[in-house]
Amino acid sequence: MANVIAVDLGGTNIRAARIDPNGKIVAREKIPTEAAAGMQSVCERIAGLVAKLRTAGTMAVGIGTPGVPDPETGTMRLPAVNIAGSAGFPLTPVLSKAVQLPVKADNDGNLAALGESWKGAGKGESVVLVFTLGTGIGGGCVINGKVFHGNHNMGTEFGHVSIDYRGRQCPCGGQGCVEMYASAAALGRDAREAMRDSLSAGTSLLMKMCHGKIDTVDARMVCEAARQGDALALFLLDQCCLYLACGIGALINSFNPSCVIIGGGMSLAGDALLTRIQLALNRGRAFKPILQDARIKLAELGDDAGLLGAARMALDSVEAK
Amino acid sequence: MANVIAVDLGGTNIRAARIDPNGKIVAREKIPTEAAAGMQSVCERIAGLVAKLRTAGTMAVGIGTPGVPDPETGTMRLPAVNIAGSAGFPLTPVLSKAVQLPVKADNDGNLAALGESWKGAGKGESVVLVFTLGTGIGGGCVINGKVFHGNHNMGTEFGHVSIDYRGRQCPCGGQGCVEMYASAAALGRDAREAMRDSLSAGTSLLMKMCHGKIDTVDARMVCEAARQGDALALFLLDQCCLYLACGIGALINSFNPSCVIIGGGMSLAGDALLTRIQLALNRGRAFKPILQDARIKLAELGDDAGLLGAARMALDSVEAK
Repeated sequence: MANVIAVDLGGTNIRAARIDPNGKIVAREKIPTEAAAGMQSVCERIAGLVAKLRTAGTMAVGIGTPGVPDPETGTMRLPAVNIAGSAGFPLTPVLSKAVQLPVKADNDGNLAALGESWKGAGKGESVVLVFTLGTGIGGGCVINGKVFHGNHNMGTEFGHVSIDYRGRQCPCGGQGCVEMYASAAALGRDAREAMRDSLSAGTSLLMKMCHGKIDTVDARMVCEAARQGDALALFLLDQCCLYLACGIGALINSFNPSCVIIGGGMSLAGDALLTRIQLALNRGRAFKPILQDARIKLAELGDDAGLLGAARMALDSVEAK
Repeated sequence: MANVIAVDLGGTNIRAARIDPNGKIVAREKIPTEAAAGMQSVCERIAGLVAKLRTAGTMAVGIGTPGVPDPETGTMRLPAVNIAGSAGFPLTPVLSKAVQLPVKADNDGNLAALGESWKGAGKGESVVLVFTLGTGIGGGCVINGKVFHGNHNMGTEFGHVSIDYRGRQCPCGGQGCVEMYASAAALGRDAREAMRDSLSAGTSLLMKMCHGKIDTVDARMVCEAARQGDALALFLLDQCCLYLACGIGALINSFNPSCVIIGGGMSLAGDALLTRIQLALNRGRAFKPILQDARIKLAELGDDAGLLGAARMALDSVEAK
């Protein structure tokens, strides 16, 4: 039966799946990336996974990677920082030769957005923006079912939209990037700071959860404590969502999306997060008619978004021929 | 000879031109809008202009308007605030019936961007962002020669990208919108404030230019004084360009444009403005590789950008058939 192989190349693991044209995941595999061995070796490992998963009906391979592959040539325009020797590496030519199948590559954030648009929270939407709230903040934009690539596939860096021109210094060189305020890393840091500074932090559930070790408090704990109604955690989440709404609002005003999807590890905070983002947006963080045109939703596919996006890309490349 | 009629509907004047398929303006007309008489009457005035300009070879009419016409139906989705009774008005159906030609309509900012992409500073570029610095800040985005409309043509409100989540209150309901910092209105206000507050303002050329009447100082004066090397005016322009670079940088990181065009009245400050925006961007206001991918340029077509964009849209609508 006709199918494609989808690959999600991460700094730690390589995940792969055989996926049918309807988006059904038929089989899966996962192996460690062993990123230190370099890109050539990583490609061999990917080729091994493809060999294991492919059938007579396999038409193409789609691969999502950190960094920025050129969508046309498949060469890494910006490196995957976690993988040795990835700068300038001809990813799809090497893989395609190894597996003797057509191979397409794109950035993992773009493919997660494509996956959610195809089979998740963005189904049937015309313009989808995805915010991935993890250690950092990633993004993706899908317009009428196709990834928006800008000039050279380097855009949709939604974590580096500044919400304060005099704000926190970001490692990217900028100031006030929303990633410095509303990522899991930022929320964890703000929580630890609040607990050190606040006289009433002792009564917070967070103090109990961290067994008095403030250094171990992280975003996951804040989300959990907020879920249980802890006042300090809720205050921190409110703040975080205000920051986020400011960044999201700027992009709603710019893109007029039909749908904004919140994904990544922090989206596990669920409705508590979504409600707060929507409320903050409603309080003037985006133009009313443009905001009303956008459904704000949680991601639905979790870790499979990237695999499904890679599959959709592979299917498109076959259908385009 | 084959041609189209382009119309630029403004709150004060209606401008129109006969334009050939190469973008050459063959003939022009201009009449007052008389906006208070309402949209039906404005349409009759436009029809009169079209009748005056059309020839046997006229294939279609393109019209740029304030507010947001739906690009498919030609009905006003958001009204042109200056023109009475424009909310919900079926602009292209009414005009098309009156002139017996196919009519296409779009927002005037979008068409100025399309015009610059076709015949101005954005020629041959893949992804063009246009910032129009006037009393407010408008925007437009053209991707591969087509206006980017988002879901319902309400986006590219680049003036309402927030650069400070705790910042100045904007009439749109938001806080810190870049329009509150870097529009001509904002620059004028900041200049008057600086002149009232600064002990050394008496030595500024601005004081001479306004004959001591600080209330009359505006952005035009600041740009002119800056051109003549006045220290206070240069400081004000520096500040303004820092604000602007923060907003532009957020959108560079989001769209990965090949070209960013600065237009509108304030672009008359020319290289003084452009150099400052570029320098501020270089100081970390956008990701380096994405910034390097974008040419930052001044608009080239002035008031004709909108007419040329309207012509391009009209030509596209004929060619699509």
